[in-house]
Formats: sequence, C-alpha cells, structure tokens
Amino acid sequence: MDLKSFVTIVPDYPKEGISFKDITTIMDNGEAYKYATDKIVEFAREVGTDIIVGPEARGFIIGCPVAYALEVGFAPVRKPGKLPRETISVEYDLEYGKDSLTIHKDAIKPGQRVLIVDDLLATGGTVGATVELVEKLGGVVAGCAFLIELSYLNGREKLKGYEVQALMTYE
Amino acid sequence: MDLKSFVTIVPDYPKEGISFKDITTIMDNGEAYKYATDKIVEFAREVGTDIIVGPEARGFIIGCPVAYALEVGFAPVRKPGKLPRETISVEYDLEYGKDSLTIHKDAIKPGQRVLIVDDLLATGGTVGATVELVEKLGGVVAGCAFLIELSYLNGREKLKGYEVQALMTYE
Repeated sequence: MDLKSFVTIVPDYPKEGISFKDITTIMDNGEAYKYATDKIVEFAREVGTDIIVGPEARGFIIGCPVAYALEVGFAPVRKPGKLPRETISVEYDLEYGKDSLTIHKDAIKPGQRVLIVDDLLATGGTVGATVELVEKLGGVVAGCAFLIELSYLNGREKLKGYEVQALMTYE
Repeated sequence: MDLKSFVTIVPDYPKEGISFKDITTIMDNGEAYKYATDKIVEFAREVGTDIIVGPEARGFIIGCPVAYALEVGFAPVRKPGKLPRETISVEYDLEYGKDSLTIHKDAIKPGQRVLIVDDLLATGGTVGATVELVEKLGGVVAGCAFLIELSYLNGREKLKGYEVQALMTYE
C-alpha cells in the first residue's frame, strides 16, 4: 500500500512556507489505518515490546492500536497539568522558548522494554524528551516508531544508538 | 474482569471535593486495556459502525484501538486550531463560560454510521457537542460508548434517543 497517497499536504500550515503533512486522512480510512498500525506492530515484535509510550495527542492515535494488537499497555506522555497523579517531567527546546512533557511516575516498571510511538519525527525534540522520561523511570527504549520522518530536519541524530522506524520519509 | 479495580481514585483532583477517576491504570495494563476495548467493540458491532469519532485526548486512547479492531477509520474531534484543514465547530457550555470543538469537514461521509467514544460521561457537554458535529456532517450516530459514567451528573439526559454504553458506573 502506498501510504503517502493517503497523506494530505496542507500548504502554509501552521505558518507560511511550511507544508504540513496531515495524517487524519490515513486515520479515517480503515484499511490505511490498519496497514500503518500493522507495520508498527511488526517492528514492535522485532525489537521486543512490553509497553507502548506515546506523547499527546497524535502519539495516542498511532500508539494505542499498536498496544491493543500486541496486548500490552499504553502509557501517555502529556503536557504539564494533564496527568492526575505524581509525575516526572523533562524540559525540551522549541524553536522559540521551552516546553515540557510529563509521565506518571508509576507508568513504567524498571526494565520494561518500551516502544515510543509518534506521528512525526521532525527535529526530534518531543521524542528526545520522551526517551529521557522513559529512561528516568528505568525503562529500556526498545525502539522509536513514526508514521513520517522529515529527514531534512535531522531528528534521527537525536536518536543515535536507538532502533528507529519511519513508515514514510520526506526529504 | 472487574474493571473498576484498575481505576485509580485520585481525591481532590482537579479541585477539592472532586474524586477523579484515573483510567491510565487501565491503559497501562495490557489485559485490562484489551478487555475494555473488546467490550466496546462488541457494542460497536451490535449497533453497526462505519467509523469511530473521539474527542481529544482521552477519546483517542479509547476509540483508536476500537477502530483498529473493527478495521474502520477514526476521526478526531479537537479543540479549535488543532486540525489543519477546513473544519466545522460547535460551542458548548462549561461550568464557567464556553468552549468549542471542531472536526474536519470531510471527516465523515453523509449516511456513515458513527460510534462516538470517550473515557467519561459526566454532564454530557463534550459528547453533546460531538453528536452535533457528527450530525451536521450528515453522519448517523449509531451509539455512544464510555468507559465510565458518573450517573449523578445526568449526562445520559443529553443522549436520549441514542444507544449508550458505559462499562462502569459511579453513582
């Protein structure tokens, strides 16, 4: 299946000059959504996965069906203030300023093999922070899977030494 | 399976006097997550479902694996400014003030049978707005499924005439 044919390119979004890759047109097609999920499930099996971790909100759309297919759990990574119990947090750089991400302190058991899943690998800020959260909790990052990689932004540099899967690459 | 035993009650969150039902401890357990998903899948089959719609962000966690299991699509309902293409929106009342939700204009085809899925049925504000969005696009609401219903908040009143499933009820 040519997954790229299901991606909608939105010019000048969220700002001029950026060509946004809209994945909702993969998700709202049952066959394309299942195909993409199954590809990540294969990768998850290869690297060995005890639990899926995904950053809000598109990481949930990609990661949750993978967890279901593997019959493993899913732990959400969220913006500060969104998780109700004790969390740890990590700051990361944005183009202008900083942001942070949190995870429940008990979301991952030490030694668990964690697959991190998100829609997009761009500069790698979000996934880098997520790796840090997982490792702070004693989890082992089994791999990182993405629907789309924007290879010209070099996000893979931040993931040296980790197994990385991207279903589509834009150069 | 006693799903309630996987819910974590968080006292005084998000504010004093509220006992928050934290479902992340269902999600991070592979068996409980699968059990809950499969119950909603059964309901989805009974009512007939062409596509799943869920409001961000917990609606994604519940709805996306259901879509995968049924091999149907998933269409996200999001806060304004989060969807990249043309949307329609609906306003709804909060305890203080108003909020609105949006959906892509092409997310649902007229006549499609839509299962709306979210974690929680409380006052019914979010699901009411989501029903309105679906029907504005010509979709048929096949049913509404929730992990948890807080029956003392009477959200079901807003869903009269619709098929409703709640896996757990707190009175």
